[in-house]
Amino acid sequence: MKTTIKNSEPLQLEPIGHIFSDFADPFGIPRQPGLASAARATLVLCSPYNDPLSVRGLEDFSHIWLTFIFHLSPKRWTPLVRPPRLGGNTKMGVFATRSTHRPNRLGLSLVTLEHIDTRHGVCLSLSGADLANGTPVVDIKPYLPWLEARPDARGGFAPEPPLLCHVVFSNQARQQLAARADCENFSTLIQQVLAQDPRPAYRRSPDTRIHGIRLRDVDVRFRATRENVLEVIELRPA
Amino acid sequence: MKTTIKNSEPLQLEPIGHIFSDFADPFGIPRQPGLASAARATLVLCSPYNDPLSVRGLEDFSHIWLTFIFHLSPKRWTPLVRPPRLGGNTKMGVFATRSTHRPNRLGLSLVTLEHIDTRHGVCLSLSGADLANGTPVVDIKPYLPWLEARPDARGGFAPEPPLLCHVVFSNQARQQLAARADCENFSTLIQQVLAQDPRPAYRRSPDTRIHGIRLRDVDVRFRATRENVLEVIELRPA
Repeated sequence: MKTTIKNSEPLQLEPIGHIFSDFADPFGIPRQPGLASAARATLVLCSPYNDPLSVRGLEDFSHIWLTFIFHLSPKRWTPLVRPPRLGGNTKMGVFATRSTHRPNRLGLSLVTLEHIDTRHGVCLSLSGADLANGTPVVDIKPYLPWLEARPDARGGFAPEPPLLCHVVFSNQARQQLAARADCENFSTLIQQVLAQDPRPAYRRSPDTRIHGIRLRDVDVRFRATRENVLEVIELRPA
Repeated sequence: MKTTIKNSEPLQLEPIGHIFSDFADPFGIPRQPGLASAARATLVLCSPYNDPLSVRGLEDFSHIWLTFIFHLSPKRWTPLVRPPRLGGNTKMGVFATRSTHRPNRLGLSLVTLEHIDTRHGVCLSLSGADLANGTPVVDIKPYLPWLEARPDARGGFAPEPPLLCHVVFSNQARQQLAARADCENFSTLIQQVLAQDPRPAYRRSPDTRIHGIRLRDVDVRFRATRENVLEVIELRPA
């Protein structure tokens, strides 16, 4: 039943809403959703999609799929990418990875739906979301466990969660955290985010450089003191 | 960290490939992927995405996500839809369903990757695909079981697979099947597709009408003889 199909059909997408999150810029965003359960995000639907009727029944699902645009990624792409998990030295096909540098820049995340607020439009509270602030979302779908939970699937070059680093806090960082209203959750978030070692893959060994990632209202300054150990030095106002 | 985000960012998608499948028209397409494991489909990537390098490493994954366009669905949408599973009488929010009539017309299917052929461009052989012939595909991603298999997720109004009908064949249909080279697989496919009762939800009781669905090269004629029983009457060349 082969038919000829033209190759240039243009398809226009419109955001149905946008993400407001802890992640101000792409550096430091967990590489997969769910690895930073302390990350909070809000999806605010926009007109005409923010009719409360459009999410009727969604509150009974614990997990949802978000399809979104990697709006901070460049539009150009290459057939081969270097997954951080493979140390940055091995090239894989872009479609064999979840790389953010991909044709059409489409992202797909499974997130936990915490709450839906329909008092003014539609706001979804999410956790475990690996999404940059401002991300345009183009679809929401419910997660169907009987169909989409396939624990026996073969996971190719990424068959299990990535190895995590140990995260320690300097005295200064500990004091700065203690002074915050969101101390406990923010401390967990920093640990979950740094445990995935957000440094570029080629820096996966101890180095003297101080790195920074923006989380919420601060720049989290850290360095790799020993193999697989990252130390949070201080929280600097962003 | 609330910021103002403009609502009208236009986003252009380009198909990376197209589906060639057993399903010539939308009527009869299984409502969820994986429910018709006998359904075969081929995803043929198009230029410039059909570089064999772009799928390097993908063959080691057993399951992949396809993001595609419901190109046969109307572009208009409504906030409420009537899921067939609820008998067609109950309205749910469009984002609480996997309805094909949705904003941006984006589809998401988990399919089994059987084989990749890179001799001339890139062709992926798939099974369990609920995709109409000619469907434009806009992304391929590997399925990550450690991240995306959440068997304990709460499945809202669709917590388990839909109830299936019993499918029987008339003598005529049986003889027509026996004469085909693809007899065994095609017979399984017909059973899997009809077991989901492709009739409109409001016809879920026995009726005298003869229905037809196009599968491969034939029009499969059937009727609902008893409660939850569909009889295949004949295979008519399409």
